[in-house]
Amino acid sequence: MLHGPASQPHVDIAAPIARELSDVLDVFDRELQSDLPFVNRLTQQVRNYRGKLLRPKLLLLAGRAAGELSHDHVVLAAVVEMVHMATLVHDDVLDEADMRRRHATVNRLVGNEGAVMLGDFLISHAYHLCSSLASTFASRRIAAVTNTVCEGELLQIENRGNVLLSEETYFEIIRRKTAALTAVCCEMGARASGADDETIDALARYGNDLGIAFQIVDDLLDLTASEQETGKSVGRDAEMGKPTLPVIRFLAGASPTDRDAIITMLSSPTADTPVTLRTMLAGTDAVDQAFDTAASYVTSATAAIASLPDGDAKASLTAAAEFVLARRQ
Amino acid sequence: MLHGPASQPHVDIAAPIARELSDVLDVFDRELQSDLPFVNRLTQQVRNYRGKLLRPKLLLLAGRAAGELSHDHVVLAAVVEMVHMATLVHDDVLDEADMRRRHATVNRLVGNEGAVMLGDFLISHAYHLCSSLASTFASRRIAAVTNTVCEGELLQIENRGNVLLSEETYFEIIRRKTAALTAVCCEMGARASGADDETIDALARYGNDLGIAFQIVDDLLDLTASEQETGKSVGRDAEMGKPTLPVIRFLAGASPTDRDAIITMLSSPTADTPVTLRTMLAGTDAVDQAFDTAASYVTSATAAIASLPDGDAKASLTAAAEFVLARRQ
Repeated sequence: MLHGPASQPHVDIAAPIARELSDVLDVFDRELQSDLPFVNRLTQQVRNYRGKLLRPKLLLLAGRAAGELSHDHVVLAAVVEMVHMATLVHDDVLDEADMRRRHATVNRLVGNEGAVMLGDFLISHAYHLCSSLASTFASRRIAAVTNTVCEGELLQIENRGNVLLSEETYFEIIRRKTAALTAVCCEMGARASGADDETIDALARYGNDLGIAFQIVDDLLDLTASEQETGKSVGRDAEMGKPTLPVIRFLAGASPTDRDAIITMLSSPTADTPVTLRTMLAGTDAVDQAFDTAASYVTSATAAIASLPDGDAKASLTAAAEFVLARRQ
Repeated sequence: MLHGPASQPHVDIAAPIARELSDVLDVFDRELQSDLPFVNRLTQQVRNYRGKLLRPKLLLLAGRAAGELSHDHVVLAAVVEMVHMATLVHDDVLDEADMRRRHATVNRLVGNEGAVMLGDFLISHAYHLCSSLASTFASRRIAAVTNTVCEGELLQIENRGNVLLSEETYFEIIRRKTAALTAVCCEMGARASGADDETIDALARYGNDLGIAFQIVDDLLDLTASEQETGKSVGRDAEMGKPTLPVIRFLAGASPTDRDAIITMLSSPTADTPVTLRTMLAGTDAVDQAFDTAASYVTSATAAIASLPDGDAKASLTAAAEFVLARRQ
């Protein structure tokens, strides 16, 4: 679940889609069943990562906001969660992370080999499940978006250690690696409800802008939050020399001395880099500035769906966008 | 190309499908085009791995042996090659290999992160391309087989360091990780030609048995051949404590002393393990025995297609099966 601060009135964004969401988990589990006990133990570990189920929720809510939900929505929601899980498992290999949602990562348990293969297993099951639908359209669209996600990850790898990463490239990376998938969740949800092009387009824009905001906040929490707060390894971006929005903003306005210190530090990051960076940025408004940018994307996300008919699904989509900002404690 | 020894009469197994094979490469290259130069540089590196094109050839030859070739065959052949390339790229991460077809591996060039993501990029493009076909059938079938391939790899990972691996489990691993894909190549090729179930089944059995033979010989060459001969890193199986057929056969008939020596060595393998193992097995018939088993699978592969009408495609399929054995110099 996305948790807001205690002061915020609690909205259960999944309420309008509770039954379908439960079906999604059944379809997800059934699809991954193997005759090999070792494989089942590994997929069980992946199930422990289940957190927000943000992408299935977005797909189902978009479908509900645009019309009636069907079994196709349930299948598609399981597919996007499977694709997302695969990227988590492979991301953890890339990041050499030890913790994910308060559980040991697959790579820590069975090594990088097992983690790479388990990610592949999730991807291939996602397409297996997706091609159980009557038309190839969804497979084609979801494959296109995973191409984009991979390109975003590769662009990020290319720019690892590029301390002078431009804001433009940072946004290009997060648009591809995160927002493309949240956008397609909303698009596919609306499309499977038989929505018109205008509604599909509005929901896709909502998904894109929510994704951008989500990734900015995620990067920001990696810099400012603790492992307890996030439930996953933190400080990884700085440790891998990966500049994120607060750092880019800070560098833009920093004194030559601070600028040189950060460039030197991120070019050869050590285990101390995250703490040092956090301390340097604490006295500036770089983090607040990045947060404000995330907030502006949340505003444009909710604006994109303003013309949709009011209802519980639209209210949940609005609440989901606002909760992205509430992750910052 | 699969090269036979110089004494063997040269058969160009690709002759009956030369034009379509060239189309496959065009479709393959077009599909992977990206707007990101970094991504294009990486896919160019993958293109250097192109060796035998065994899987596209099998698909096209099976299609030709069963009827007429169409554009669907070309698309499917590019898809299976893309899936295979992805497994090569990810295998190299798993094996920490440095060389592949006389070129540096992707993981050596851009690190494991880049290699994992590039493999994912290839997989997602394979499904993108496959879902350009009119029906979801091929996507569903190819996804099912890649599920099996991943399970084979995971079963292998589970049994790494299991020196007492049974022959049964060894065959289960290679059936899933290698033979399942060569079988589906032949099956899909025949199916896209509108063949009857009997023909589809015969070609699938041919593909399965050829795949088993191929993997036995591949494992055998890893033990006995040099890097010059194979064009890729050798001795990796022994170095990773992965028992293959000759070792399993040797252990079955070894003296208690030899048996204990091999168990100790493979349980804690070092850089010297491949050479020591090769020397120990050289004085025995374990390698010949494994080769004979491969030969029996080649015999059953060719027997499976015996009832197909004679023609150049069937002759090429027979030659392809025999060439599997000719890889042993």
